[in-house]
Amino acid sequence: MTTPTVLDALRDALGDAVSTTDAVLADARSDKSGHVSDAPPIAVVSARSIEDVQTVMRIATATGTPVVTRGAGTGLAGGALGGAGEIVLSTLEMQRVLEINEPDLLAVVEPGIINGAFNDLLLARGLWFAPDPASRAISTVGGNIATGAGGLLCAKYGVTRDAVLALKVVLADGRLISVGHRSVKGVTGLDLTSLMVGSEGVLGVIVEATVRIRRVTPGTVATIAGYFPSVVSAAEATAAVTASGVQPSIMELLDPVALVAVHRYLQLPTPTSGEAHVVIQTDGPNAEAEAAAILDVLHAGGGRAEMSTDHATGEHLLAVRRALHPSLEQFGTPLIEDVSVPRSQLAAMFTAIGEIERRYGISIPTVAHAGDGNLHPNFVFEGVEVPDLIWQAADDLFTTALRLGGTLTGEHGIGLLKKRWLGDELGEDQLALQHGIKRLFDPENLLNPGKMF
Amino acid sequence: MTTPTVLDALRDALGDAVSTTDAVLADARSDKSGHVSDAPPIAVVSARSIEDVQTVMRIATATGTPVVTRGAGTGLAGGALGGAGEIVLSTLEMQRVLEINEPDLLAVVEPGIINGAFNDLLLARGLWFAPDPASRAISTVGGNIATGAGGLLCAKYGVTRDAVLALKVVLADGRLISVGHRSVKGVTGLDLTSLMVGSEGVLGVIVEATVRIRRVTPGTVATIAGYFPSVVSAAEATAAVTASGVQPSIMELLDPVALVAVHRYLQLPTPTSGEAHVVIQTDGPNAEAEAAAILDVLHAGGGRAEMSTDHATGEHLLAVRRALHPSLEQFGTPLIEDVSVPRSQLAAMFTAIGEIERRYGISIPTVAHAGDGNLHPNFVFEGVEVPDLIWQAADDLFTTALRLGGTLTGEHGIGLLKKRWLGDELGEDQLALQHGIKRLFDPENLLNPGKMF
Ligand SMILES: Cc1cc2nc3c(=O)[nH]c(=O)nc-3n(C[C@H](O)[C@H](O)[C@H](O)COP(=O)(O)OP(=O)(O)OC[C@H]3O[C@@H](n4cnc5c(N)ncnc54)[C@H](O)[C@@H]3O)c2cc1C
Ligand SMILES: Cc1cc2nc3c(=O)[nH]c(=O)nc-3n(C[C@H](O)[C@H](O)[C@H](O)COP(=O)(O)OP(=O)(O)OC[C@H]3O[C@@H](n4cnc5c(N)ncnc54)[C@H](O)[C@@H]3O)c2cc1C
Repeated sequence: MTTPTVLDALRDALGDAVSTTDAVLADARSDKSGHVSDAPPIAVVSARSIEDVQTVMRIATATGTPVVTRGAGTGLAGGALGGAGEIVLSTLEMQRVLEINEPDLLAVVEPGIINGAFNDLLLARGLWFAPDPASRAISTVGGNIATGAGGLLCAKYGVTRDAVLALKVVLADGRLISVGHRSVKGVTGLDLTSLMVGSEGVLGVIVEATVRIRRVTPGTVATIAGYFPSVVSAAEATAAVTASGVQPSIMELLDPVALVAVHRYLQLPTPTSGEAHVVIQTDGPNAEAEAAAILDVLHAGGGRAEMSTDHATGEHLLAVRRALHPSLEQFGTPLIEDVSVPRSQLAAMFTAIGEIERRYGISIPTVAHAGDGNLHPNFVFEGVEVPDLIWQAADDLFTTALRLGGTLTGEHGIGLLKKRWLGDELGEDQLALQHGIKRLFDPENLLNPGKMF
Repeated sequence: MTTPTVLDALRDALGDAVSTTDAVLADARSDKSGHVSDAPPIAVVSARSIEDVQTVMRIATATGTPVVTRGAGTGLAGGALGGAGEIVLSTLEMQRVLEINEPDLLAVVEPGIINGAFNDLLLARGLWFAPDPASRAISTVGGNIATGAGGLLCAKYGVTRDAVLALKVVLADGRLISVGHRSVKGVTGLDLTSLMVGSEGVLGVIVEATVRIRRVTPGTVATIAGYFPSVVSAAEATAAVTASGVQPSIMELLDPVALVAVHRYLQLPTPTSGEAHVVIQTDGPNAEAEAAAILDVLHAGGGRAEMSTDHATGEHLLAVRRALHPSLEQFGTPLIEDVSVPRSQLAAMFTAIGEIERRYGISIPTVAHAGDGNLHPNFVFEGVEVPDLIWQAADDLFTTALRLGGTLTGEHGIGLLKKRWLGDELGEDQLALQHGIKRLFDPENLLNPGKMF
């Protein structure tokens, strides 16, 4: 169907929820991956209700028009890019909190609420929502669910999938289904709730979510900052922390290249060559004792480390970690990678990254969520297009992660950027089943076509 | 294809792994639900390897013969019953532990290992596998995964789905796929691992599982036994415990009818009329302080309660709860139900059960995992066939659980017994999608046909 006809149908049905200004369309062409679609989409529709979403999907089905669901557009995999001939369906105006249920420790929210704003409401009641992507101040809860977002706290407090009890989903043809339940247990039928978590907009539009919330953890927060003579010794020390049985809430590791970049950005003295940085937090009633135990482990592993339970000092100790991403932008455009390996393989993965750096003559500043084995190796390049050499190095990186028993993406998703590797991880037979599920939910291939698959 | 031909093919390929003795076939007709299939299956094949499972599925596909996968046959939903014209594929001989990886806190096992035997191996290393159905001494890890089993510890230590990292699955036509990964994080493609958990043998045969294991929780275990003047006050007190923010490892509630049954069975004095029983455990480094806080909550809620950190006394305090199921058998055949509701609705659910008892003139001794809102109302009847009146009462029970925001089955699954209610919970559109997934995985409907759907 022609673009004008689709636009007319959208405008007739949805009025000023439909925007086609140059600025809005241009914005919808990119996310935070750095990728930009070939051309602007037909329109951006800002849905205000479930009915609006259903209307969009009915028009899409009637006219054969593809739809890209979009939260805040902070994705790092190119999943929310809208291109030629596509409708971008924004959830950003659907941001009501429909219920905060303290006795049941659950909340019901619309998908467009920003994670940080939701947490502000909760915090005022002594509650919180655990999924904590570093983008929590700018990304939506719906986007977090659609990507299966991770964060710093996952090893202790779980990933997004663990926090989702039930979802309302609008299907490709506009029908609305409810999956899951409000009870914490339930095994009725196949688990479509988990199937929707991380489905990156290819199976349906998440229009409401019932999520678990938690009570604020009582007790102190203890922060430890440590320095190690090499990344391998740092990785081994974090593995030793995990092996000691103490569960930190946060355990982050910066490799030497990353540490140099941050020091330069923050105008700190250049660190000793080869030095790696570790920052760890413990929380809860035993935070201090746990931190003391961790300090011993770090010292035994050859690190220098200090600890504080003072809030301001803690923030200071976290400052180096927090500055990593901004610091990379001084060198060019960053491509933030996201492999995940079993925790015991962290040192092996860092060794392999060193080899890849040498093989391709590039540097790959890397930060790891060391508590759960998720690494973000960063490739930095000039311009906007990822050079071939970098994709080759990334290919090496992915192959290594898979060989070590890990995965292509720990938390950012497949989107556009990793779909050529999807089959390598899943294998042909599983990939065919996944395609089949996609076709079952979306026979006309209208929901985020070309993403993930 | 005729039974003799199928049998010949199985015997040719698998030799003495194929059994057709009367005793073996008779055994495969029932599980612990009390249901018995109409007729014996063709054969029971005891697979010894993944290849054996593939061989069975290839023969099944070639001959159009349905296959019922069976672990220990302890299921309560009739999921593992083998009937006329079916092959029963037993996993009980596939019970090797392929890996125990302490640094990564994971293990790789064959599906037929008994949960308790697996935990014995782990305990010797200071480790454990958290899924703890009351049947752990007799049920298989593969069966636990296929049913999404729960247990007493779920509120604190999670359900089976939380413990599964990766699976190897043989598909209906004999192909082998691997889903998931060894890393704790990962969002590559659609989450087929979660889809397999709780799939009750209808999508594929689970032939290997990579599961999370935990370190034994250090510290004391404190046990509290409490008595309340009514089930509603007991339910409210357990809700108040949850609301207090303390997380018990176990929190079980027996209603007055259940308590009378147990007292009679254990030859204890008849309890005060209307009295309900609560038994709670805390563990970890703060177990004793947490138990003290819980005691206060129980007393404030009108209960009498005592606490002990002594192991033998703790076991004594748990004895009443443990004796529930044996105690029911003195009255007839129990049908163990399994609804789950949001925790705040526990008292409402107990009130509704009381109404159902009066409406149908029956008694429904009930135990609840009060920490997670999962109730097991038990119907006891004469003979082996569930009388219609009981199904009507069960229907009322299910409708109430759904109305309260809960689910038909918290942990036992749909199997044969609940499939007529599946659509009530899922709705027509979701049910059609679930059927579609079943057809996608199993186009010839050979895997456990007639179960779940
Ligand atoms: C500075 C920075 C730090 C980051 N840190 C992290 C981190 O620590 N951990 C992490 O996991 N990610 C991180 N990210 C990536 C990103 O923020 C997450 O992927 C986030 O979950 C995306 O949310 P969003 O609302 O921006 O979604 P979008 O980018 O708009 O969309 C992401 C994908 O989800 C789909 N989608 C969005 N909403 C819906 C819906 N309602 N229904 C169906 N599909 C939908 C889109 O189609 C797209 O495929 C970071 C990004 C930045 C820029
Ligand atoms: C005394 C008693 C107490 C119980 N307590 C609990 C409890 O607390 N919590 C709880 O959740 N359950 C409980 N149960 C029910 C039962 O033990 C669980 O459902 C258990 O997980 C079943 O394991 P199994 O090996 O016996 O499986 P089976 O009964 O043999 O099979 C159960 C289902 O899983 C399928 N299946 C089994 N193995 C595989 C495989 N490898 N691949 C694919 N499909 C497979 C079967 O086809 C069937 O549909 C209890 C049962 C009894 C008798």
